[in-house]
Amino acid sequence: MHSGVDALLVTDLINVRYLTGFTGSNGALLVVDSDDEDGPADTIVGSSTGSRDQRTLFCTDGRYTTQAEFEVPDLPRLIDRPCDLALLRGAPEGIVGFEARSVTVADHGAMIEVVGGSGRPVELAPTTFLVETLRAVKDDGEIDALRRACAVADQALAELIAAGGIRAGRTERAVGLDLDQRMRELGAEGPSFETIVAAGGNSAIPHHRPTAAVLAVGDLVKLDFGAAVDGYHSDMTRTLVLGTPADWQVEIYQLVQQAQAAGRQACELGATGQTIDAAARDVITGAGYGPQFSHGLGHGVGLQVHEAPSLARGSASIMVPDMCVTVEPGVYLPGRGGVRIEDSGVIRADGYDVLTQTSKELVVLG
Amino acid sequence: MHSGVDALLVTDLINVRYLTGFTGSNGALLVVDSDDEDGPADTIVGSSTGSRDQRTLFCTDGRYTTQAEFEVPDLPRLIDRPCDLALLRGAPEGIVGFEARSVTVADHGAMIEVVGGSGRPVELAPTTFLVETLRAVKDDGEIDALRRACAVADQALAELIAAGGIRAGRTERAVGLDLDQRMRELGAEGPSFETIVAAGGNSAIPHHRPTAAVLAVGDLVKLDFGAAVDGYHSDMTRTLVLGTPADWQVEIYQLVQQAQAAGRQACELGATGQTIDAAARDVITGAGYGPQFSHGLGHGVGLQVHEAPSLARGSASIMVPDMCVTVEPGVYLPGRGGVRIEDSGVIRADGYDVLTQTSKELVVLG
Repeated sequence: MHSGVDALLVTDLINVRYLTGFTGSNGALLVVDSDDEDGPADTIVGSSTGSRDQRTLFCTDGRYTTQAEFEVPDLPRLIDRPCDLALLRGAPEGIVGFEARSVTVADHGAMIEVVGGSGRPVELAPTTFLVETLRAVKDDGEIDALRRACAVADQALAELIAAGGIRAGRTERAVGLDLDQRMRELGAEGPSFETIVAAGGNSAIPHHRPTAAVLAVGDLVKLDFGAAVDGYHSDMTRTLVLGTPADWQVEIYQLVQQAQAAGRQACELGATGQTIDAAARDVITGAGYGPQFSHGLGHGVGLQVHEAPSLARGSASIMVPDMCVTVEPGVYLPGRGGVRIEDSGVIRADGYDVLTQTSKELVVLG
Repeated sequence: MHSGVDALLVTDLINVRYLTGFTGSNGALLVVDSDDEDGPADTIVGSSTGSRDQRTLFCTDGRYTTQAEFEVPDLPRLIDRPCDLALLRGAPEGIVGFEARSVTVADHGAMIEVVGGSGRPVELAPTTFLVETLRAVKDDGEIDALRRACAVADQALAELIAAGGIRAGRTERAVGLDLDQRMRELGAEGPSFETIVAAGGNSAIPHHRPTAAVLAVGDLVKLDFGAAVDGYHSDMTRTLVLGTPADWQVEIYQLVQQAQAAGRQACELGATGQTIDAAARDVITGAGYGPQFSHGLGHGVGLQVHEAPSLARGSASIMVPDMCVTVEPGVYLPGRGGVRIEDSGVIRADGYDVLTQTSKELVVLG
């Protein structure tokens, strides 16, 4: 551990899953610095054999006793609640880091009470982004899971289109349910997030929830969706048109297409989130639509659908190999319609490896 | 406001939705005490007309500008991010409460910086359960939404059984997908939570996630699921048996059935969460299965599937009319199987009004 702490209390459930494989809804982990040979860490668990893993302790509650035996077989397990306080009671003396971005002020107050009441020299220290930074760079197994998640989304959309599922007369909601069901049948645990189907004027709302609005000829239809596979989340947006596209629709489509290509092109090793965002944004701003691109260019994807790094104005995140990020510029014309095109992909030495394979050419239906 | 604060910064998204109707993924609310006629609250918004609502301010980011116009038409809206800090900058002088159970230590640090840098006499004060306490008691519209959510779940299970969807040879996962799809087709936004389908030995795991395990004759099959309708979450568990039930299965089923009836009976005005839990638990403990009932009896349901009040040991929550709670005792025999029976219902003057209508008699399939 290189963060100035003797132990780290991991309470963010996604971080706990990342480090242990535990998928339940309540659990925490106390990671003890195994380099601290002289420390009292061996006293954490009576059965410690001195191996590295034996110095780290997992806690969950009685609902997950059996599940934890399967999912976290190699760590000593404490069954107690609340998990954060139970682990703190067994923490080594010294500085115990906690995750300041997930621990609430109320939980922090309870932690201070436990530490204060213990009479032992333990100091709580806020930390941020320790595990999240590890998570931003994926290993082969994680990239494989993301690739499979992207393939499920690609396949589901192809089947939806082939089956005539995106057509005038259908509601946004029916299209979304159809797409979700196809992803599940193809093996997804579920959608990565609430699928966005936005038709006509609704497509100008960047994060529109599907409604009973009926698709009509002349509509842009924006679909932003993904599949969760083995806990990893794909994320993809495609925008189609029903009937012969109007000139303004073609214009903003091609503009977003160019901006998205520029964003992908900028995804080089060493680039920052800000420079990549700018590469795409400049294309849109140059065409006079800057104010109509009202969000960041992209974000990391993995165990969460939004995670580090950020591709946006002000993001100093530096691209390193095997980061997985989305590239998703958009142009939204209120009341008329909007276009967004989004891929998920991997930062590689030779550029951005697109995982979402669906064509980005304008698809005209009906 | 009767909490010793001059304003309350509401950042918990569910609480924001409850108070405003906003359903986006980023938003916050500054509720200003309208009784404080002498305070400087009118300065929050330039356009304040002095009406109560005009003193309260909503904030979201640019992705939700259009959505907020529809969903939060009656409040002044600020488009900025992060929302908590933007609202704090406009807070009245005095004590500004924040939600200590949802504000993280990191966000709190940023809030302290903003307040300190403003040069204005603003004091941040932690609060807990202010909005959650309001949410525990439902109005007619909320109860109606819950009733419709429960009806969707009832209907979906009835259809699943009628279609032969719960049978030997099918996987837990296929049964769960089938049930989820039926709830969606009946109008649910989705399942209330990840549907639990647990067969055979898996039914002894209180919160089991559906796997590729195949249902077999002789299995107890436990289904714990619900439907989300208009943002409100039903929650129901039924346990069925495939083939002629064994004596031990009938024994624990009848025991849980009796305990569940005792729990419902105890749901009277003025009862505490602890006494209701005890009423059901005593039945199970009296039969010698106390250690095999390893969780609390129930919980509030509403905009969240788990919310106040708690029906569990140590819960001092007092039942008042129109609280909506689950009653869900269980007995779990590791390696063999388990039974849980759960209703959602409303606390009324004349007792517990069950919203989940599915029969609680033991259903034998196949």
